[in-house]
Amino acid sequence: MMNELSQVIARIKPVDPAWLARAQERLDSLTKPPGSLGRLEELAARYVAIRQEMFPPLNKKRVVVFAADHGVVAEGVSAYPPEVTFQMVYNFLRGGAGINVLARHAGAGVEVVDIGVNYDFAEEPGLVIRKVAHGSANLARQPALTRQEALRAIMVGVERAQAALAAGVDALAAGDMGIGNTTPAAALAAVFTGQAPAAVTGRGTGIADEALRHKVAVIERALALHHPDPNDPLGALAQVGGLEIGGIAGLILGAAAGRRPLMLDGFIAAAGALVAARLAPAAVDYLIAAHRSVEPGHQLMLETLGLSPLLDFKMRLGEGTGAALGFTLLEAGLKIYKEMATFVEAGVADKPA
Amino acid sequence: MMNELSQVIARIKPVDPAWLARAQERLDSLTKPPGSLGRLEELAARYVAIRQEMFPPLNKKRVVVFAADHGVVAEGVSAYPPEVTFQMVYNFLRGGAGINVLARHAGAGVEVVDIGVNYDFAEEPGLVIRKVAHGSANLARQPALTRQEALRAIMVGVERAQAALAAGVDALAAGDMGIGNTTPAAALAAVFTGQAPAAVTGRGTGIADEALRHKVAVIERALALHHPDPNDPLGALAQVGGLEIGGIAGLILGAAAGRRPLMLDGFIAAAGALVAARLAPAAVDYLIAAHRSVEPGHQLMLETLGLSPLLDFKMRLGEGTGAALGFTLLEAGLKIYKEMATFVEAGVADKPA
Repeated sequence: MMNELSQVIARIKPVDPAWLARAQERLDSLTKPPGSLGRLEELAARYVAIRQEMFPPLNKKRVVVFAADHGVVAEGVSAYPPEVTFQMVYNFLRGGAGINVLARHAGAGVEVVDIGVNYDFAEEPGLVIRKVAHGSANLARQPALTRQEALRAIMVGVERAQAALAAGVDALAAGDMGIGNTTPAAALAAVFTGQAPAAVTGRGTGIADEALRHKVAVIERALALHHPDPNDPLGALAQVGGLEIGGIAGLILGAAAGRRPLMLDGFIAAAGALVAARLAPAAVDYLIAAHRSVEPGHQLMLETLGLSPLLDFKMRLGEGTGAALGFTLLEAGLKIYKEMATFVEAGVADKPA
Repeated sequence: MMNELSQVIARIKPVDPAWLARAQERLDSLTKPPGSLGRLEELAARYVAIRQEMFPPLNKKRVVVFAADHGVVAEGVSAYPPEVTFQMVYNFLRGGAGINVLARHAGAGVEVVDIGVNYDFAEEPGLVIRKVAHGSANLARQPALTRQEALRAIMVGVERAQAALAAGVDALAAGDMGIGNTTPAAALAAVFTGQAPAAVTGRGTGIADEALRHKVAVIERALALHHPDPNDPLGALAQVGGLEIGGIAGLILGAAAGRRPLMLDGFIAAAGALVAARLAPAAVDYLIAAHRSVEPGHQLMLETLGLSPLLDFKMRLGEGTGAALGFTLLEAGLKIYKEMATFVEAGVADKPA
């Protein structure tokens, strides 16, 4: 399976700056002062360059939500009980969760992947069962996953990206559901940004001050126990990560290998992105950071990735909700690029040179 | 006509905090940690409170683009020739401008109001001719408008808001077109923020360093000539403003009087908002700041208004383009509020109290 992953990684090429320049040339011919649509222009140029087509379609968008449980909840790191993970999966399937609402708003589909929920689902439309384990082990006391499980989680993500591409999906987003998952995400943030746990750990679903101090201590203990090595991303994912984070990393790699943009959600998605970026640095070229989360570690993670978020909306829900909003902005940028009249077409005087 | 304006102003009431609290109560019952959708929740609560209905519709959205010319272009303050104003009006009417693309993306209509273009248009579908004058006078040498013209411009905006309400419009946005109009907008920014012209003047459509220094000097000269008084907003609008800025101020007042939100675009719209806020401070409760423009004065104007922009997208086109994007975010927030399942409905365990 390591060999399969290596093949995917080998297919990821940096985005060609010549394509960015070609797209910007068209943007500069449109009836507006050059660059005056700012980040909308940047989004359009990025999309064109990723797709390597002058007028690429953006019809089908998909949010893939990876759900998993976390043994570390035994340490009391979350404000919600662990059964909320499987209950929220049902909420996703019935269309009542935040991600359902925002994906509908963005014209995107939602695929829910059980990659490690501690609950046995029956087959349901919209649910993809790819359970690697019934949740991770308690990373404060033992490795969260075996190395093999971590690899399998990544390959599930790769497979879901490939399935999306085969279904004609133009743009992907990664979402997450997993009570307790800000703890492994913060641990991975510490590993890959080099910051202390206290600097990258936040309140997750809303724990109070004392619980936050405890959460930081749990992460410190885990890092002291496992000594994760940022140069061994698969090892770090196994030691202090989680299955949905692995799935997200794989989805990113699969999207980049297939030349599709991956709209990045918040804190958990960024943990997956850090794993993916260490495995394949060029994958970052395919990422668009949808928003900056309230979680304090998120900005540091985005800086490490070299990404600037589109929105700063004080969001901290996960599920891919920020990414769904990001889709609406990407689409706006591409429509500007495709639909605006040029100076010549409109008979408008251009700026004198 | 002053009497008519006073009647509109008298109808503007502050938004009731009890309605904000009622909306937040519903938001807190939905299947997400309280507050975890950040500014989307804020937008939903604001809309519900403005409309004073638990489940208000948001079907019809309209961007009203006021177009006018500016005598101050004779001073060489713009990168583009003045005929671009009327040429861009035709571009709006044919659907090829940035605002057309983004309004379509947001599901909003575009109304173009000739409030002072130096060109005589024939009747055209989508164009509302309410010409107060063939552009303003050169504010560096004489008052831009008479006090009566300034008042008429405001009343045109009020009338367009009332027409929108009569047509069932749920949310309004104000846009602008007018070569040279960042000069009056910067002058009004200086008047109402108390900052020096150099602090609030930017490159507009893209002038170089020397032209920028000249633009600042032109504004300094105008302020020294007219001594506009921030406590006399109508006088300041007449002395150093412009007709589309007056129209925007009126649209804001009309929207607030009719309890409809007004999505604020960038630098020019903020100048109109400062005039409106001085005439009727409670009107600010009905404003949503869509984005922060590249123009350096814009942030200072938003701070004076007490508004925090939704987007920071490095945009500087005007026309209402940022506001159209803002509509998509407002709609996302309201859909969250209306469509998400509650904890009870979804059978999801809430956070233990």
